[in-house]
Amino acid sequence: MVETVVILAGGEGSRLRPFTKDTPKALIRVAGRELLYRIIKQLGELGVKRFVIVINEKFKGNIENFLKEHKFHAEIICNPHPEKENGYSLYLAKERVKGRFGVVMSDHIYEKEFLEKALKGNGLIVDKVGLYIDRDEATKVKCRDGRIDDIGKGLKEYEGFDTGFFILEDSIFSVAEKILKEKEVLTMSELVKSAGLPCTEVSGYFWMDIDTPEDIEKAKKLLVKTAIKGAGDGFISRNLNRKVSTRISPYLVDKFTPNQITVFTSLLGMLSAVIAFFSPALGGILLQISSMLDGLDGEIARAQMRTTKFGAWLDSVLDRYVDFAFLSALAFYIKPSWAFMPWVFLALFGTIMVSYSTERYKGAYCEDAYAVIRELRYLLGKRDERIFLIMIFTLFGWIKALFILLAIITNIRVILTIYLVWKKKGNE
Amino acid sequence: MVETVVILAGGEGSRLRPFTKDTPKALIRVAGRELLYRIIKQLGELGVKRFVIVINEKFKGNIENFLKEHKFHAEIICNPHPEKENGYSLYLAKERVKGRFGVVMSDHIYEKEFLEKALKGNGLIVDKVGLYIDRDEATKVKCRDGRIDDIGKGLKEYEGFDTGFFILEDSIFSVAEKILKEKEVLTMSELVKSAGLPCTEVSGYFWMDIDTPEDIEKAKKLLVKTAIKGAGDGFISRNLNRKVSTRISPYLVDKFTPNQITVFTSLLGMLSAVIAFFSPALGGILLQISSMLDGLDGEIARAQMRTTKFGAWLDSVLDRYVDFAFLSALAFYIKPSWAFMPWVFLALFGTIMVSYSTERYKGAYCEDAYAVIRELRYLLGKRDERIFLIMIFTLFGWIKALFILLAIITNIRVILTIYLVWKKKGNE
Repeated sequence: MVETVVILAGGEGSRLRPFTKDTPKALIRVAGRELLYRIIKQLGELGVKRFVIVINEKFKGNIENFLKEHKFHAEIICNPHPEKENGYSLYLAKERVKGRFGVVMSDHIYEKEFLEKALKGNGLIVDKVGLYIDRDEATKVKCRDGRIDDIGKGLKEYEGFDTGFFILEDSIFSVAEKILKEKEVLTMSELVKSAGLPCTEVSGYFWMDIDTPEDIEKAKKLLVKTAIKGAGDGFISRNLNRKVSTRISPYLVDKFTPNQITVFTSLLGMLSAVIAFFSPALGGILLQISSMLDGLDGEIARAQMRTTKFGAWLDSVLDRYVDFAFLSALAFYIKPSWAFMPWVFLALFGTIMVSYSTERYKGAYCEDAYAVIRELRYLLGKRDERIFLIMIFTLFGWIKALFILLAIITNIRVILTIYLVWKKKGNE
Repeated sequence: MVETVVILAGGEGSRLRPFTKDTPKALIRVAGRELLYRIIKQLGELGVKRFVIVINEKFKGNIENFLKEHKFHAEIICNPHPEKENGYSLYLAKERVKGRFGVVMSDHIYEKEFLEKALKGNGLIVDKVGLYIDRDEATKVKCRDGRIDDIGKGLKEYEGFDTGFFILEDSIFSVAEKILKEKEVLTMSELVKSAGLPCTEVSGYFWMDIDTPEDIEKAKKLLVKTAIKGAGDGFISRNLNRKVSTRISPYLVDKFTPNQITVFTSLLGMLSAVIAFFSPALGGILLQISSMLDGLDGEIARAQMRTTKFGAWLDSVLDRYVDFAFLSALAFYIKPSWAFMPWVFLALFGTIMVSYSTERYKGAYCEDAYAVIRELRYLLGKRDERIFLIMIFTLFGWIKALFILLAIITNIRVILTIYLVWKKKGNE
């Protein structure tokens, strides 16, 4: 693993005007976070200890303020000749790095898993698939015997795409020096080609470079989409709720914090309970809408790199309020006889206990119940499924049947959870 | 920290007959666990990597079977001359240990915190208080300038007591060799006195040696009592429930597993709910009894060194069943009008949510809410307090008032929990 990464942040972002009028390209915000914030934060979390940032001299004040605001520690090198291109920018870091080090373009966005693999690579990191990029605009790479043979936008034959991420040795500086004796301008492409760098494949992950306002919009959508990976969603969530929320998130991600969204969707849920007291069908529809929006806070938090444990905790607690309030409202709407009340009580109890049993599991074992006890994923009764059932049954006016169904589904789920936890973790 | 500990387990335990008829003293069970199990398990958890056990040859089979059963890795040295005493036993380990190492008597029981400190000590570990031991019977120690000046049972002037735990250097073996050239018998006391070992004070923790059947009984009681330290109990628990449960635990600790007790007290709680359906007052008394016994499983688990995360999880989930069942039974007993039902629903909801909010906290932050947010300890509404209120109010027949009171107390507690967590951990 490399300890030092050089960030090439000299770009002016001329194609990104007016965003880049008073600010360098590296400080453009995508989904509420500066490009430079994203790369420093992510690499820091992956163990990179030291950052050297090469910038355009005229933005020194902006970059320094940014680093101070976020308490990032980084060394700044000013490039007085940005017209000499990014290979020259790297050359300016010559005295600051020894041995192996990483180099990354500040105008690229990467998924965490990409960076994790790239940091273990060697030479130029090549993506052979390029799932998320504009392939016509991308820099292509041709490798031979594991080393760069040719590189450029216009290559006809190529194996993959230049990801803008490099793991280099300090010998690269003598190659750069040699070229710069003959030429004024030096691009990274020319430099790595001359050095005959090895290629390392890291394919299929989300990464892209930000050159135009359209790229920013595209990145927002992709950040939201890749944020829901492995969220352990239920059937309705995967096939309905997430399809809605991931389409809405990109429009909110610049404007709201995750906690604001959490409170808003919870208030919408509480409102649906109030309405259910007068009209169960209307309340049920509103509850399903709030459930479709329930994923927004998490998606936005991940895209904004603003996930907090508090957010997840608050979301869970408020969800229980909404669940309980809605079912209580339905009970008040039908005011059943005491002979029927056991179903109401069991539905209320089971609904909270589905969450209690799995959350209490996390409290005991400090690990996600769904990750360890995979059977829990396929058991009916998760919140997205319950709410969808509530909507359907209230639409048809089958409220008593709904209580009976929920009482059965949720309590069976809790009892099976006890059984499964005992079977798998009874001795721990 | 020492990596190797020599356990002196040569004792026959003649004063412990008939317990020691076919078994060495080290394998005597106290609170359901062999003395040797306790010390190996505890020291292993504190980072000791290697154990050398010196035993009486005639019990080799017993010890080997014991080690195999528990998958303990330890080297066995047989002492063919147990009559030469424990200093000679230690001398037999000469070829097996280098540098610094620990020595401990297998017939001593120690609290974890004692061992933690003792392992960082030097020379003889001395307890200047001796809170839990029989001071007349104990070996006394007199120190001068930080080193042992005299040691023995009959000392008139002394600073503290020999805890049976030592941190030694391998130079001790040449001291032993010198003495053994002149004498046949060598006790640890004589050895450490001749060597002029340093004294390290570790005072006030629970430890004792087991010599007689009375010691076993005493140890059981003390193991249960010291097990409840820092359990974060509520007011009623501290002042009533624990006083009952810690008096009962010693009688059950040899006979039942913690999970058996958990299931039994939960069944008692469920029975109280069934009875409350016919007689709230009787049910309330039984519920309070089950609450007084609710601490048994944890006390026994800790005393038996059998705490499991599963046990804690199951206990929590079953408690919610009892709470919900009892309040539901009370609701069915009074069958209030729908105008009163909001109080019933709020009491049911708040009762589960008090636990949900703090347990979900542990799920999010992987730490105990009561340890971090200390205000939660002083907020009314914990389970022991709720159940005590239930008993009082059902005795007087004030069931409606009980619902109103519980609805208010529990929901205020949950809202304050949200506020306190937000205030303290909102940014994490």
